[in-house]
Amino acid sequence: MTKDEFYMGKALHEAKIAYNVGEIPIGAIIVFEKKVIASAYNLRETLPCATAHAEVLAIEKACRALSRWRLSGCTLYVTVEPCSMCAGAIVNSRLDRLVYGCDDPKGGAVHSLFCIVNNPSLNHQVSVTSGIREEECSQLMKDFFRQRRQ
Amino acid sequence: MTKDEFYMGKALHEAKIAYNVGEIPIGAIIVFEKKVIASAYNLRETLPCATAHAEVLAIEKACRALSRWRLSGCTLYVTVEPCSMCAGAIVNSRLDRLVYGCDDPKGGAVHSLFCIVNNPSLNHQVSVTSGIREEECSQLMKDFFRQRRQ
Repeated sequence: MTKDEFYMGKALHEAKIAYNVGEIPIGAIIVFEKKVIASAYNLRETLPCATAHAEVLAIEKACRALSRWRLSGCTLYVTVEPCSMCAGAIVNSRLDRLVYGCDDPKGGAVHSLFCIVNNPSLNHQVSVTSGIREEECSQLMKDFFRQRRQ
Repeated sequence: MTKDEFYMGKALHEAKIAYNVGEIPIGAIIVFEKKVIASAYNLRETLPCATAHAEVLAIEKACRALSRWRLSGCTLYVTVEPCSMCAGAIVNSRLDRLVYGCDDPKGGAVHSLFCIVNNPSLNHQVSVTSGIREEECSQLMKDFFRQRRQ
């Protein structure tokens, strides 16, 4: 198992907690100097709050953990391709690197619908790796929406 | 003075508080049924937190005020064109309408760099009015950056 697959397992663990509380199953973690400094899962319905996606919550926790808004040196792992809000938050927080599992063809803002995180016109570009444990990340979403339709 | 100019005055008031505490001077308010249910200004340096833009903080307050994540029926007033993160948050919160003061040519995600808030590919489109009290909103930003360079 690679380092990215290992950390994606931790994001998947968060996503499964979201699944179990009836939230869209997306999980995220942030790693700094080989340590997980933030873990979060989608809490939109629970709070309720429109901005409570896993990535935003993880970024907020990481800023508190490091007592700074610049998350230089950090990598964010998330199970699904970030939306515009989260992609923008990733750029705004100056994260070094984004690793995600499966694409979101309908709303993804890394390469599906918009290209935000490594756009040359913005003042910061984030390095991206995708497709890590893609099948597991994608299957969790499919299971959730299949169950919800029933 | 039109209704939009009146409410933009309240967002400008928030922006001036940001200016006085040394934050990039952007302010936002959210109006529901003619009542201001949320007011916020940029707090990125103060908290410190990368997601603490005026719009995100106002959306989070409005969700708490209405106890729901869908801000249907609400209008957000903000002094400067929202960035990708905030534009995404505006779509995610299903706001009816966005009113902003001046453009942000470098990072604006309404029409300058990306077109997020009324993109036909997303599952919600927000009605947009721009240029309300544009000069005052823009002057506050110019004054801030001029002072900071000195």
